[in-house]
Amino acid sequence: MIGRKLAARLADNGLLAGQPLAALHLVDVQEPPVPEGNGNFAVHAQAGDVTVAENASALIAKRPNVIVHLAAVVSGEAERDFGKGYRVNFDGTRNLLNAIHDAHEKDGYCPRFVFASSVAVFGQPFPDVISRGQALTPLTSYGTQKAMAELLIADHTRRGHMEGIAIRLPTIVIRPGKPNAAASGFFSSILREPIAGEEAVLPVDDSVRHWFASPRAAVDFLIHAAGLSAERLGVHESLDMPGVSATIAQMIEALERVVGREAAALIRHKKDPAIAAMIDTWPKAFDPQRAVELGFEAESDFDAIIRAYLEDDAP
Amino acid sequence: MIGRKLAARLADNGLLAGQPLAALHLVDVQEPPVPEGNGNFAVHAQAGDVTVAENASALIAKRPNVIVHLAAVVSGEAERDFGKGYRVNFDGTRNLLNAIHDAHEKDGYCPRFVFASSVAVFGQPFPDVISRGQALTPLTSYGTQKAMAELLIADHTRRGHMEGIAIRLPTIVIRPGKPNAAASGFFSSILREPIAGEEAVLPVDDSVRHWFASPRAAVDFLIHAAGLSAERLGVHESLDMPGVSATIAQMIEALERVVGREAAALIRHKKDPAIAAMIDTWPKAFDPQRAVELGFEAESDFDAIIRAYLEDDAP
Repeated sequence: MIGRKLAARLADNGLLAGQPLAALHLVDVQEPPVPEGNGNFAVHAQAGDVTVAENASALIAKRPNVIVHLAAVVSGEAERDFGKGYRVNFDGTRNLLNAIHDAHEKDGYCPRFVFASSVAVFGQPFPDVISRGQALTPLTSYGTQKAMAELLIADHTRRGHMEGIAIRLPTIVIRPGKPNAAASGFFSSILREPIAGEEAVLPVDDSVRHWFASPRAAVDFLIHAAGLSAERLGVHESLDMPGVSATIAQMIEALERVVGREAAALIRHKKDPAIAAMIDTWPKAFDPQRAVELGFEAESDFDAIIRAYLEDDAP
Repeated sequence: MIGRKLAARLADNGLLAGQPLAALHLVDVQEPPVPEGNGNFAVHAQAGDVTVAENASALIAKRPNVIVHLAAVVSGEAERDFGKGYRVNFDGTRNLLNAIHDAHEKDGYCPRFVFASSVAVFGQPFPDVISRGQALTPLTSYGTQKAMAELLIADHTRRGHMEGIAIRLPTIVIRPGKPNAAASGFFSSILREPIAGEEAVLPVDDSVRHWFASPRAAVDFLIHAAGLSAERLGVHESLDMPGVSATIAQMIEALERVVGREAAALIRHKKDPAIAAMIDTWPKAFDPQRAVELGFEAESDFDAIIRAYLEDDAP
């Protein structure tokens, strides 16, 4: 979803890192749709599986100046299928990094590498507000794979093979489209369905607090990371992105303010202890000091997250 | 060196985790020497390269109850040869973990896995005294490989494939034998050579502070980790071991006290700015609270580290 939105934004405005785009290559395991471009540059789309090292090398053979690596097996699937999670989330990333390293040895190639990481690199116990320097103690295979990839990216960056930045995305709401089976899916559905006049189920207490940004902010993060001056970057730039820390009650109040009381009235409370227990282990808030220093910006309140959905995605 | 001493200790007293040993298998890339046993159990030694997955599986096919994984390319070599460092220090470890996972799926096998990690998982900036929860920001490929292996071990442990413990060893002094080319080599040689009546060169200021334990303590750590009750262990048991924080001046004072002024007089001060700059980035001290809670013990002062060498190793 984020990849599709990033592609659409880039195809539309044709700028990255303050430069006009020369070409945009979109790669996914299934050939992704080609967004409408502005006509000033070529947009290519292809199917490609970077868990095969040769495929990663073939992509790097084009010597892209910026690589944004979003491809991943999601948390639930990485937990169900141990081998697949490591193969896609870790080995796929490593294949890209090895291909970049080989190209660097050959001709000094040194691209910007923007990696979509996750707050799942953190596991309990952690403080209510997580700051820079918090140790990574993931409690999922997905979080472990992201944490290992962050370390590997930092080592390649330190050695000068590339300029790596890992972006730890907040939970992204409101996701457009249909409800999905993810444990975090209700964070979107309790807003998206009522906006469409449909009922939605809230499986946790409304005192639950979590950390959010909009899909629009996520695209902003990736584009900002691609354009940051190399002089400002250190070796270990695994960055907690800015976001909005909100309780479910605050999210519902925002829905009332921005959309109306009748929307909020469509939320049914039906507790699911399994989901509640899982959400209870997730981060509640961050102090994204380093990212803010580097100019990353997100919404400043939940009303803005809802407005972004209404402007960008609501049917 | 630690592996050889561990093998000798086990072969001699025949106990591990409070149980009589049934068999002791020693594996290294070159066939290791067989220590003298006490006759109550078999001691096997073989050459084996765990960077080949099939070799790792063949070792695990024996279903050892305890695996102590020390094999590694040292820091300097991992920095010179990027591919070899990752192959041995990361992929070799991963092959063992995957083989354990496969065995677990087959018959519920769940061994204790003791991994020799390193304080090189920490990189500047860090506080003068490092506590539990310090983020891992390695500034060497060796440290990165150890940090990635720690994460992978924690994930296998969380999933119940094995009981993993990573032991972050202090700098081990006094190493027996000849001077080596490691940047940290002088920490041993400024003591070992004078004890043998020979001159040694000190390449850094005597105000430099670092974190130490004896080879004997390192063997104690590994044996203690092998025997800890599983009930006491969490998922992320990557443990900073206890040790002695000492300046070079304090080390030399200890040498004077334990061996004599004439020994200390054999140390020549000849500053090497490259070594000094590197040592400056290393940890100075730890608060090894979790390891102490779990019963790990080291020397309490530097005199004891010197005495351990005189008793165990001095020619």
